[in-house]
Amino acid sequence: MSTTVRAWGAPGAGKPLEPFTVERRDLRPDDVRIDISYCGICHSDVSTVTGEWGERQWPLAPGHEIVGVVSAVGSEVTGFRVGDVAGVGCMVDSCGECEYCLAGEEQFCDRRVLTYGQTMPDGEYTQGGYAQQIVVREAFTVHVPETLPREMAAPLLCAGITTYSPLHHWGIGEGSRVAVVGMGGLGHMGVQIAAAMGAEVTVLSHSPSKKADALRFGATDYVATSEEGALAGARRRFDFVLNTVAAPLDFAAYLSTLRVDGVMCNVALPQQPFEAPVRMFTNQRRSFVGSLIGGIAETQEMLDFCAENTIGAQVEVIAADRINEAYDRMMRSDVKYRFAIDASTF
Amino acid sequence: MSTTVRAWGAPGAGKPLEPFTVERRDLRPDDVRIDISYCGICHSDVSTVTGEWGERQWPLAPGHEIVGVVSAVGSEVTGFRVGDVAGVGCMVDSCGECEYCLAGEEQFCDRRVLTYGQTMPDGEYTQGGYAQQIVVREAFTVHVPETLPREMAAPLLCAGITTYSPLHHWGIGEGSRVAVVGMGGLGHMGVQIAAAMGAEVTVLSHSPSKKADALRFGATDYVATSEEGALAGARRRFDFVLNTVAAPLDFAAYLSTLRVDGVMCNVALPQQPFEAPVRMFTNQRRSFVGSLIGGIAETQEMLDFCAENTIGAQVEVIAADRINEAYDRMMRSDVKYRFAIDASTF
Repeated sequence: MSTTVRAWGAPGAGKPLEPFTVERRDLRPDDVRIDISYCGICHSDVSTVTGEWGERQWPLAPGHEIVGVVSAVGSEVTGFRVGDVAGVGCMVDSCGECEYCLAGEEQFCDRRVLTYGQTMPDGEYTQGGYAQQIVVREAFTVHVPETLPREMAAPLLCAGITTYSPLHHWGIGEGSRVAVVGMGGLGHMGVQIAAAMGAEVTVLSHSPSKKADALRFGATDYVATSEEGALAGARRRFDFVLNTVAAPLDFAAYLSTLRVDGVMCNVALPQQPFEAPVRMFTNQRRSFVGSLIGGIAETQEMLDFCAENTIGAQVEVIAADRINEAYDRMMRSDVKYRFAIDASTF
Repeated sequence: MSTTVRAWGAPGAGKPLEPFTVERRDLRPDDVRIDISYCGICHSDVSTVTGEWGERQWPLAPGHEIVGVVSAVGSEVTGFRVGDVAGVGCMVDSCGECEYCLAGEEQFCDRRVLTYGQTMPDGEYTQGGYAQQIVVREAFTVHVPETLPREMAAPLLCAGITTYSPLHHWGIGEGSRVAVVGMGGLGHMGVQIAAAMGAEVTVLSHSPSKKADALRFGATDYVATSEEGALAGARRRFDFVLNTVAAPLDFAAYLSTLRVDGVMCNVALPQQPFEAPVRMFTNQRRSFVGSLIGGIAETQEMLDFCAENTIGAQVEVIAADRINEAYDRMMRSDVKYRFAIDASTF
């Protein structure tokens, strides 16, 4: 038993996206049905449909930055009511029993199921948010504060939590000196969130072109890294460097901008391995770390934090028939700063 | 005004060590004079006298694992009296004013002066502990508990603090799952200290030959990494991996033995850069870090901890005329586990 809903997805690896339909299961007792309003476009969507991240079943609808309105709830659902504005991020299931699930860090559960392109315990293959509707367990559904415009909230479900989680985990706060490397979909969230946490934020971006936006997002300084000696001039300045750039990078040069006990955190997933001299770690007790989205409780915390601080993604809203064009533009960094698909156009 | 004392040192880069004399300054008000009993031999000594770590003034006496007896104190010294057993480690001066000095982490002070081969603010070129006597500022002198045999205490001043500091900094304690990579001079201290902190310690060593010693030092498990699939069998087992090996290493394989939030810490200084796929960091929020000796207050804390827990280095005591042979043997890992020079033979 299921409901057929309109969606957009890739018919095969590397193929342009096109309309198709997906089946949504009938509500189980712990399920929430969401009529989707907007779905953000994430780099992961592109990496998945191109086949870069491995084989999938096709056709596949991507999308894990989902905001919509609850249209039905299962008999045991207590936290959501019809009419609530709700969100779904990168995960739709996990074991619920392991130490990570119990700690609210479902992203580390070995049995977590991603929102699209993975198999649920009962065999259902997950289809993402490029669709009219989605059915998700209550435990993986979050409340989107009404004060956040829905299109600006959608990217928070991935880009927002991906940057919030490490800033929160490594204790960024009043007086922290934070650098955000790259100001795209992830970076422009990182700047806003770090600034709202009280940090002094510097943007390290290739060209000088995004400076005005960076300052508007709350940065107090901007370094165009394409300029000769730019990073050398920022030697030992930062407590935390959040790297949102997946393109090849001179990691050692960025590491050199860290103070003693400074942490460089990758949330981007470059093909290139991380590489740097060991001495750059020992001499200043620096760290290189990585972070992966965030847990469900932390995602709720992030949404509430963004609402309190009037933070949202800066989005360009598009209709579904412009998804392929949007993918091309995103890969050229030609978007300020995230695309959100109007789900009424699926 | 100065005192001439007998010493052993290198007449030039890469030359065998030989007897010579060094000048020790007359006591200033804040100085302590120590009649040296034993000086440990550290890998750094070899890296310095071979010229691998850059140019030095010659002749140069190495040695920064110094234990002896106070034979005179300056007029303003309050913490030491003649007859006290005292130690000197890797540093003999720092600015005293920067945030790191004020925090008791003099190792990060930009003006710190190493025990040998560096220049003091007044121009004095430092000569190390392969000598009969040394004169050091009280602020860089520590008390060696009388219960620790002096020859076993000497290596604590470098090998001990180098392993204690990261274990302490990253919160190792009861229930921590720690792996120590390599069981040489540093590693055999790391095993004893981590075990005394309450950790469950596994030694990851190339050959199976050191297993009995590892268990005697407090390890509960031992993995011979030369065996096929050894590291794969330790996948996601440890909270903390302390790498004491400077030889080339498959860093990614060791990183894979870390659990979520696990930390791999290098105290060795390999020529080879650190390299590993970024995904190994993001997917489990792992860290790669480095650590460098420790501050003076922490060195005192470590000595007291070792005395309380009856921990010392396992040493082979040699006469000065066997230093060159000891260097050769150490580079072949043919010592269990540290050489200490009997200073009466200088």
